[in-house]
Amino acid sequence: MTSANEFRFHLHATDGRARRGRLDTAHGPMETPAFMPVGTAATVKAMTPEAVAETGAQCVLGNTYHLMLRPGAERVRRLGGLHKFMNWPGPILTDSGGFQIWSLKDLRKLTEEGVTFRSHIDGSEYALTPESAMDIQNALDADITMVLDECTPFGVDEDEARKSMELSMRWAQRCRDAFEKRPGYGLFGIVQGGIYPTLREESAKALVGIGFDGYAIGGLAVGEGQEAMFDTLDATTGHLPADKPRYLMGVGKPSDLVGAVERGVDMFDCVLPTRSGRTDQAFTRRGTLNMRNARHKDDPRPLDPDCGCYTCSNYSRAYVHHLVMAREILGGTLLTWHNLHYYQELMAGMRAAIEAGTFADFKAAFAAGEAAGDIPALEQGTDG
Amino acid sequence: MTSANEFRFHLHATDGRARRGRLDTAHGPMETPAFMPVGTAATVKAMTPEAVAETGAQCVLGNTYHLMLRPGAERVRRLGGLHKFMNWPGPILTDSGGFQIWSLKDLRKLTEEGVTFRSHIDGSEYALTPESAMDIQNALDADITMVLDECTPFGVDEDEARKSMELSMRWAQRCRDAFEKRPGYGLFGIVQGGIYPTLREESAKALVGIGFDGYAIGGLAVGEGQEAMFDTLDATTGHLPADKPRYLMGVGKPSDLVGAVERGVDMFDCVLPTRSGRTDQAFTRRGTLNMRNARHKDDPRPLDPDCGCYTCSNYSRAYVHHLVMAREILGGTLLTWHNLHYYQELMAGMRAAIEAGTFADFKAAFAAGEAAGDIPALEQGTDG
Repeated sequence: MTSANEFRFHLHATDGRARRGRLDTAHGPMETPAFMPVGTAATVKAMTPEAVAETGAQCVLGNTYHLMLRPGAERVRRLGGLHKFMNWPGPILTDSGGFQIWSLKDLRKLTEEGVTFRSHIDGSEYALTPESAMDIQNALDADITMVLDECTPFGVDEDEARKSMELSMRWAQRCRDAFEKRPGYGLFGIVQGGIYPTLREESAKALVGIGFDGYAIGGLAVGEGQEAMFDTLDATTGHLPADKPRYLMGVGKPSDLVGAVERGVDMFDCVLPTRSGRTDQAFTRRGTLNMRNARHKDDPRPLDPDCGCYTCSNYSRAYVHHLVMAREILGGTLLTWHNLHYYQELMAGMRAAIEAGTFADFKAAFAAGEAAGDIPALEQGTDG
Repeated sequence: MTSANEFRFHLHATDGRARRGRLDTAHGPMETPAFMPVGTAATVKAMTPEAVAETGAQCVLGNTYHLMLRPGAERVRRLGGLHKFMNWPGPILTDSGGFQIWSLKDLRKLTEEGVTFRSHIDGSEYALTPESAMDIQNALDADITMVLDECTPFGVDEDEARKSMELSMRWAQRCRDAFEKRPGYGLFGIVQGGIYPTLREESAKALVGIGFDGYAIGGLAVGEGQEAMFDTLDATTGHLPADKPRYLMGVGKPSDLVGAVERGVDMFDCVLPTRSGRTDQAFTRRGTLNMRNARHKDDPRPLDPDCGCYTCSNYSRAYVHHLVMAREILGGTLLTWHNLHYYQELMAGMRAAIEAGTFADFKAAFAAGEAAGDIPALEQGTDG
């Protein structure tokens, strides 16, 4: 028997390399393959938590870098943890802060011990080590904690990529040693190694040797392109244990998700559906719409005629176009809501297809939809 | 028997001059005294319509000036009217556009015929007459249509105020003549006359002579102060028929609402709760909070311990403070939600007090709460 809040991955079915499973955590389950919306600063931007849950999301992300600077991890702990603070009762995954610090470039300094950096908010200096990254995520009360790693930049040669990966592996061991085991809480290692298959294999094996509750694949979606990303997944997932979840960090476009699930990935996060929502873009079964385009201004149809989300059930393209032209906050909310729902429907479709053994058909139908392009335009004024 | 969608005001009870009633419209009833949130550009800013309804609001405003420029009244008509366009099934009141155009100052030109003005969006020229103001609000499908009037500036002498008021009365007659009568739809006249009691009386009598479905009091809250506003109400409401609703336009602070209800006003609108919500202010039973203040950063208590709104039921002051400091959209949403709920609770409290004949007690308790100031600060770190 498994206790209700044991941290455990259940693999229900496979179709080729694609996997259908469930990850149980202290704050409930996550059906996989899963897409986790990004709640950078303890809020999925422009959404209430109830709206996020309504899209079908079960787990959200918090960003350690942002939260340690503001409001501060110890403050979140005093206030009862991130779940209570942001009113999200379900599972929460926090990244380690490594990726954001890596992107600070001139503001950071890396040593064997860890990384020091300056806050983008007020310029004050902070340090992050594998050990403090564990403390901070513990204070936040993350169900899924990520090891601190160095995100290897795209374009470096194999020697540099190896040095970076090996540093990340030493940090991974220190994280494992420092992580406080609690029932229902888990720690994920992160495979690095750039686009070099031998390094990815070495990294995966090193992490499996240490032993983690799940395995992330990091350092992708940083400019290498979809083909190189898929090649890297091909070189990696086979070296990860079947009984642990696999998480592709920071990915991606809908077609990225389909291709990565096909290659055995179980979990994803990305700012794309939320950020696109706030920049007037709608994902649909027939590609992406720019809602600033004047062709929508008289269109009474929903963003996606096949979508049952809150936005598509209640509002026209004309209204969403009006809101984005008037820069109304509700425009970003409605588009974010729709985009997150679209992503969750995509994941639900893949889960059902894997269960039914029809993933190849699903993938073909998905590609055909994206290739078809938007529904034909209406004649102006025919909307009745 | 009254048909379900007849436009009719029912006066249920009075307590002194304060009135408890109900206004029936084509899209449902509004219990009075009522506060109507402002939905300038076909959205109550930062809120879904469901959230607006959840606060207890029954009727929202639309701004003719904004809507005629974007998306355009005929476009809204083609799209099924404002209710369908913005997903608000309840009553909608539209202003005539006069007030916004009046505030354009250098961009407008006034004649007996009407007003011409330049759009603040693209500088293109528009004209608005009493007749076109009726057409536009008809196209928007407003349950409550307002006459076009000239908002007399504060500080003009009695001669100027008279000329302006008399122009508005001639326009009021033209509006009445042009208004298309439909079951459940009503037209309100607007009393003008600045702060001059004799002009207000003349204006009220002129409008009653024409005959309207309701009577608004315009040209207040433009700098005259609360005392002069109350004096003007004292000089006006007694000249309005008891069996028609009275609407004080653009007002106001909570204490304005209490004093105006005391003087026989039934309906209000104001941007204060919504705009304040987007500028980090919270209305409470003990005055107004600036949520940027650092004293909130560790406070686990809700904005108002006596409030049952969505925000106060689910979030701490510390979280709201965090959101506004991080400029997160959800901060504006949560504060707007709370403020609208506070306004609706204030109106509900006044309605109950009038029914019970205890309005004087209600007013005294309200004033004592505002005078008491915020709940005492917590010691840092005692929140557990």
